[in-house]
Amino acid sequence: MRVGVIGGGQLARMLALAGAPLGVRVHALDPAVDACSGGVAPLEVAAFDDLAALHRFADVCDAITFDFENVSAPALHELEVLRPVRPNPLALATAQDRGAEKVLFVRVGTGVAPFAVVEEPAHLAQAVATVAFPAILKTRRFGYDGKGQIRVDCADLLEDAWTRLGRAACVLETRIAFERELSIVAVRALDGELRCYPLVENLHVDGILSATLAPAVVDPALAQQAESCARRVGETLDYVGVFAIEFFDVGGRLLANEMAPRVHNSGHWSIEGAITGQFENHLRAVAGLPLGDTAARGLSCMLNWIGELPERNAALRVPGLHWHDYGKAARAGRKVGHATITAADRGELRRRLALVADLLGRHAQIDPVLARLG
Amino acid sequence: MRVGVIGGGQLARMLALAGAPLGVRVHALDPAVDACSGGVAPLEVAAFDDLAALHRFADVCDAITFDFENVSAPALHELEVLRPVRPNPLALATAQDRGAEKVLFVRVGTGVAPFAVVEEPAHLAQAVATVAFPAILKTRRFGYDGKGQIRVDCADLLEDAWTRLGRAACVLETRIAFERELSIVAVRALDGELRCYPLVENLHVDGILSATLAPAVVDPALAQQAESCARRVGETLDYVGVFAIEFFDVGGRLLANEMAPRVHNSGHWSIEGAITGQFENHLRAVAGLPLGDTAARGLSCMLNWIGELPERNAALRVPGLHWHDYGKAARAGRKVGHATITAADRGELRRRLALVADLLGRHAQIDPVLARLG
Repeated sequence: MRVGVIGGGQLARMLALAGAPLGVRVHALDPAVDACSGGVAPLEVAAFDDLAALHRFADVCDAITFDFENVSAPALHELEVLRPVRPNPLALATAQDRGAEKVLFVRVGTGVAPFAVVEEPAHLAQAVATVAFPAILKTRRFGYDGKGQIRVDCADLLEDAWTRLGRAACVLETRIAFERELSIVAVRALDGELRCYPLVENLHVDGILSATLAPAVVDPALAQQAESCARRVGETLDYVGVFAIEFFDVGGRLLANEMAPRVHNSGHWSIEGAITGQFENHLRAVAGLPLGDTAARGLSCMLNWIGELPERNAALRVPGLHWHDYGKAARAGRKVGHATITAADRGELRRRLALVADLLGRHAQIDPVLARLG
Repeated sequence: MRVGVIGGGQLARMLALAGAPLGVRVHALDPAVDACSGGVAPLEVAAFDDLAALHRFADVCDAITFDFENVSAPALHELEVLRPVRPNPLALATAQDRGAEKVLFVRVGTGVAPFAVVEEPAHLAQAVATVAFPAILKTRRFGYDGKGQIRVDCADLLEDAWTRLGRAACVLETRIAFERELSIVAVRALDGELRCYPLVENLHVDGILSATLAPAVVDPALAQQAESCARRVGETLDYVGVFAIEFFDVGGRLLANEMAPRVHNSGHWSIEGAITGQFENHLRAVAGLPLGDTAARGLSCMLNWIGELPERNAALRVPGLHWHDYGKAARAGRKVGHATITAADRGELRRRLALVADLLGRHAQIDPVLARLG
């Protein structure tokens, strides 16, 4: 069984590492000759829209999946006539589009921030009538890690913001005063079985995920809301594989922010912190195998390494710390690795995180997590 | 950091998978072009005694280690003048030789079965005077998985047995009536720090490991004996890396049977069943990094798949089951994979193992483990 992954970044790399013991071989396609999955799995170097290369690639794979979602429609079409594409192209298309995503959340009964679509000049006035300010204007497509979005403090600034985003198709949404950001990672099998990982809390810096606390310290009713949303989204899209949904917690009510149709940064903790990691479960689903147990093993905190890796040898002294070097060159803003700190209970996790903060000089990143741990 | 592994079997493969997240790249050397580590790491195809190839190999590595211990002395010499060899050649030489091994155990104060060296005809009579029968005659070198050994029921049969072993250098030892076989896996760092995994119980079929129960259900004093032996062996050999010592439990007293100067089959459970797996800890030691925590996470049982893999898709339905396919073709007697079943407590482990036995029709392999679990 060989699974082709469109994209050869760290997600493809971690898929390949999870696939080897399972007997599922991962083969990635990426335009970069130094794509980091190449160190652990075969890499086909080709542009994402090189239809001939996609054809060759599909020929040697039994099923196709993705480590990033912005694949073009013609490419998807080329692939899906050749091999099963999981998740299916409709699910991908929905998650690629912030407008379609919001419509989906509303359809499954999950709240979203008040929003309006801005695609032509006439929409500007309608949007101002629908959306309270301060708001955020986001491109409908190709946004990630805070890119493709601009804060708009008042109605007068909307047209200017839209122009700065190239007058592309956008959604304007009210900026929500939330207590925290939560996300749920779920996996759905070919036979429709769906399992959720525990709800987690995410802390961002400059729009990029900085830390994930798993499980989140939340009321069970909140976790239930998130699972219910994930279940209905999975069923509606006839989804196969892992996906994530990000939420704002607004006074105990969840508003869905966006979904990612792939393994997700907020699920990296599951490699060591859950019985079956998200990467293994995604491959199990895509390969048509039974799902693994998504229950947590104790508590975990995932810390993202952005730009460059901290001093590894110091970090490895921390008990329960699991290091993940993606094999990428250092570059500002780039995700080059992460670490997951596992612990049996909250006190142990606190002590270990405090040690990481001291050893690596990472108080700015870790103190907010400690505050969350109470 | 690149670690060269002499041997490209499943141990090298699991080292490579553990090394990738750690930022330690594994590069293997093996005479077989289809050596199974090749699926996940670069493979240099060359004979183990091809000194020119070993030289080229060492040139691209920062340190050298092994996935099997029977490397020839000239090859070791070629390697050690070029790069650090970990464990060191003296430690390897000791563990390669059943005679030297037994002398070492006695030296560190651990009991062994009564034994005698048989290297020339004159030794036969001396051996009969020292060793009670029934006994086992074993070649001093190149034995593994029950190979290179013959049971000798009485003194009259000794010379015939020796002839069947090619009149090679052997040790004759009294066959011990033991209650169970236990083993300890330990790791020693470059700075001399030594950590032990919990003592485990091993069940063999036809001389090959069939199952490992981790931790063993034993009196803490027994575990203390084993740890103390491992500590003294590690210090005496100035060992760097993972090693294993197998013991017989004879009425609450441990007799050392043999040591393996490498990651060991009875430590495979640690990938998911301990905080840091043996493969990661071996690489940490060989690369000069701090050691990881060797504590167990709940209980585990490792089941070896010998000859061919059982039906994977049925097995994956068992909660807490972790599948390991080595990517090897089926062949009688060959280790082609294993599974580790993890559980929070003994009752859960019993239920999961019973489920594996039913789903895979593996009662013969699993019922003895269930009997041990009580």
